[in-house]
Amino acid sequence: MARYVISLGGNALGHTPSEQKQLLNHVAEALYPLIIEDHDILIVHGNGPQVGMINLAFTTSTTAPEMPFAECGAMSQGYIGYHIQNAFHNLFTKHHIHRNITTVVTQVLVDQEDQAFLNPTKPIGKFYTKEQAHEIEKNHGYTMKEDAGRGYRRVVPSPKPLDVIEKASILALLDQHHIVIASGGGGIPVVRQDHQLLGVDAVIDKDFASAKMAEIIDADALIILTAVDYVYLNFNQENQVTLKHVTVQELENYLKDSHFKEGSMKPKIEACLSFTKKTKNQSVIASLDQAGLAIEGKSGTVISYYKGPHET
Amino acid sequence: MARYVISLGGNALGHTPSEQKQLLNHVAEALYPLIIEDHDILIVHGNGPQVGMINLAFTTSTTAPEMPFAECGAMSQGYIGYHIQNAFHNLFTKHHIHRNITTVVTQVLVDQEDQAFLNPTKPIGKFYTKEQAHEIEKNHGYTMKEDAGRGYRRVVPSPKPLDVIEKASILALLDQHHIVIASGGGGIPVVRQDHQLLGVDAVIDKDFASAKMAEIIDADALIILTAVDYVYLNFNQENQVTLKHVTVQELENYLKDSHFKEGSMKPKIEACLSFTKKTKNQSVIASLDQAGLAIEGKSGTVISYYKGPHET
Repeated sequence: MARYVISLGGNALGHTPSEQKQLLNHVAEALYPLIIEDHDILIVHGNGPQVGMINLAFTTSTTAPEMPFAECGAMSQGYIGYHIQNAFHNLFTKHHIHRNITTVVTQVLVDQEDQAFLNPTKPIGKFYTKEQAHEIEKNHGYTMKEDAGRGYRRVVPSPKPLDVIEKASILALLDQHHIVIASGGGGIPVVRQDHQLLGVDAVIDKDFASAKMAEIIDADALIILTAVDYVYLNFNQENQVTLKHVTVQELENYLKDSHFKEGSMKPKIEACLSFTKKTKNQSVIASLDQAGLAIEGKSGTVISYYKGPHET
Repeated sequence: MARYVISLGGNALGHTPSEQKQLLNHVAEALYPLIIEDHDILIVHGNGPQVGMINLAFTTSTTAPEMPFAECGAMSQGYIGYHIQNAFHNLFTKHHIHRNITTVVTQVLVDQEDQAFLNPTKPIGKFYTKEQAHEIEKNHGYTMKEDAGRGYRRVVPSPKPLDVIEKASILALLDQHHIVIASGGGGIPVVRQDHQLLGVDAVIDKDFASAKMAEIIDADALIILTAVDYVYLNFNQENQVTLKHVTVQELENYLKDSHFKEGSMKPKIEACLSFTKKTKNQSVIASLDQAGLAIEGKSGTVISYYKGPHET
């Protein structure tokens, strides 16, 4: 039995409640091999489309009060957590498995001095015209940026996770072998100000949050599940190379050579490097559908601190 | 050290995020006497105004998909739970207390055959005209009812809680002396259908949910905090009587004599009766501001199974 952090992309969860329910039944089935092996499991999920939907509902509603982004994130943890719990509970019933699964609403500490606060980069919510964007900047103090020719959007900072406020509860549940869903959407970002925790408008990358969680719970491996089976060099080009087993050092060199896409594969690679360098435990980047094989080392890119025996 | 379930009204949490934050700092201060006595604490909060706000935001938004009521409830658990955790965490820091507090996203099982499903009574969301209400009934199959002369609203059933799906996780955390926030808003209502848990459009009364939680965690007392200091007979009349200590039997007689208001004090009384009859442990109905005194038996109405020695 091992202890794993499973990182799930928010894009894999769809755009409506009914889509999300259906897709999460699929996620539960895909993770079934880990369940029957009786591993300790902590699930960290993304929330990009979902928190965007919630934020937009409040922004475009004619009745709702202004809802800060941290609070929208908290709502997304309840919304997605409920569907994950429900899907797994139904999987357990179907297979006569006795496991418990719970979502912990999670605040994640970030540093007020994080450079990210000086340069907000993460677009959220609605598209606006240039004129509207200027008005919003003036009236709300938000930073607005042009987004890939599609109009102007608000951008928020993406600071690095430093600590998980509810870690003791997460650990207490894992130690009782409960499956835990935590730090959803990267966690609700809070800073420490005058000895108080204060929610801030920011988005913590869920892969970095997964790596931090994996470090905290002393995971045997961090497993990032995504839409592709492996990490590739020269992705989608004629000379594409499939990475099956790489060391930290090799991967750092590939990273320097700009092989991985910003906002997509790059943060996943960086999260894995951070975890594996700190703990010397493995990271895996694999596709959701191959999760079972990935646990057995038969699919996905394995990132190790040391060279494996077959490579010496 | 004792184990308490604290039931908090959703109306005590305000109507906007900033109001809620402020009010919850006050709640945390009011519960401070229980914290320093180092009691086990499970908090169940209401969510009437909050889930209404979320549901309305989705209903009136120009962009959002239709959001079922169960999912709105899950969002409210994340939203309110985050603010409660945050307020208590800040209280702990201020007083140098080492406690953990966590919200568990909670599904609560109800019976599909519950009579409540035949007669939906709980008004939710927006007001409509008679004509609009008819359209909605025809197109969505919702039950619409006239609400106190203010227009038509959708009504949903209010079934009784049978079980708490995440109870093992809640107990595991309480056993580690963590403060737990669970069954928020009465819990996300689910029915068992073809061996699957299925979310339903319903509202579980949070006082009944508190009583069920208190029964499950074997609480020493169920403490329902509200806006008044005591339960009264002939409330607000010249012959008003303050109830300081009543037995189950006395209270059942008062209940039969219609002393308590539907949808307000009556469900609180019924919840206390249910808990105290089943467990023979005490229930207390007190005001939030007197929570500390209520624990010491110096304020609030105490409901006991047996007659106290001073009354024999």
